[in-house]
Amino acid sequence: MLERSPRTGLQRKTDVLAKLEARRADCWVASAAPSGNAHLVPLTFAWDGERIVLATEQSSATARNITASKRSRLALGGTRDVVMIDATLHEAVDLERASPELADAYAQQADWDPRAARGQFVFLLLRPERIQAWREVDEIAGRTIMRAGAWLV
Amino acid sequence: MLERSPRTGLQRKTDVLAKLEARRADCWVASAAPSGNAHLVPLTFAWDGERIVLATEQSSATARNITASKRSRLALGGTRDVVMIDATLHEAVDLERASPELADAYAQQADWDPRAARGQFVFLLLRPERIQAWREVDEIAGRTIMRAGAWLV
Repeated sequence: MLERSPRTGLQRKTDVLAKLEARRADCWVASAAPSGNAHLVPLTFAWDGERIVLATEQSSATARNITASKRSRLALGGTRDVVMIDATLHEAVDLERASPELADAYAQQADWDPRAARGQFVFLLLRPERIQAWREVDEIAGRTIMRAGAWLV
Repeated sequence: MLERSPRTGLQRKTDVLAKLEARRADCWVASAAPSGNAHLVPLTFAWDGERIVLATEQSSATARNITASKRSRLALGGTRDVVMIDATLHEAVDLERASPELADAYAQQADWDPRAARGQFVFLLLRPERIQAWREVDEIAGRTIMRAGAWLV
């Protein structure tokens, strides 16, 4: 079937951008503590065209790990329609210092507004360095569609 | 609606066991390198009643990280039907040294047999220490259903 053929790089990029622009979508966020413990949680994200925006409590393991290590590995989509993103922290902005534009854009896409939530939140703005996208084993080849922050397609 | 009420601990345990026993199911596997980099991949798993069994290439970042750190954090299910498992490595068994029982049980549940695949594989047998299960925010309370390796329900 045509739809089960390996996708081209351009198709994968289109599919990845659709996932990044989806409303009320979550990603899996992996981070590591200085102690060497891996952490993993699902978080609702937004995409500003260049950066993935997460909102989480300042005291969370995710916020502490990523502000210390400056990096994260994220997954979007299901386990058989995978988007893996290695990202570096571009900026961490405490909610009370965030611009209305940033907070509005996050709330609009995430369909959830941390300004209305209890707790001390921080926005983590993560810049993708490498993006890989694959579904089944026939898409392992050609899975890297961004490297060193630049789209390859 | 009844089905959207917060589940009891017992319901969550039942749902978690159903996910652990599902055929051809994947989990997200987070691990950390000694360098402090978090890694994350989807892997097909099996469950032997006490341990989650993963099969991955010996040279993979996941195998290297988990055999070094002796621990992993895993997620089953979707981002709004979450099962988070903190697990410790009980045993790592190279495929060529694995018992037929272990390899057969893995292949049966995973619907994939690493003995038929190219590459040097290892089985990672991970024992859950803590399990948390929640769907939406109303299930955050009561999400911990296993602690220190013991079911709380």
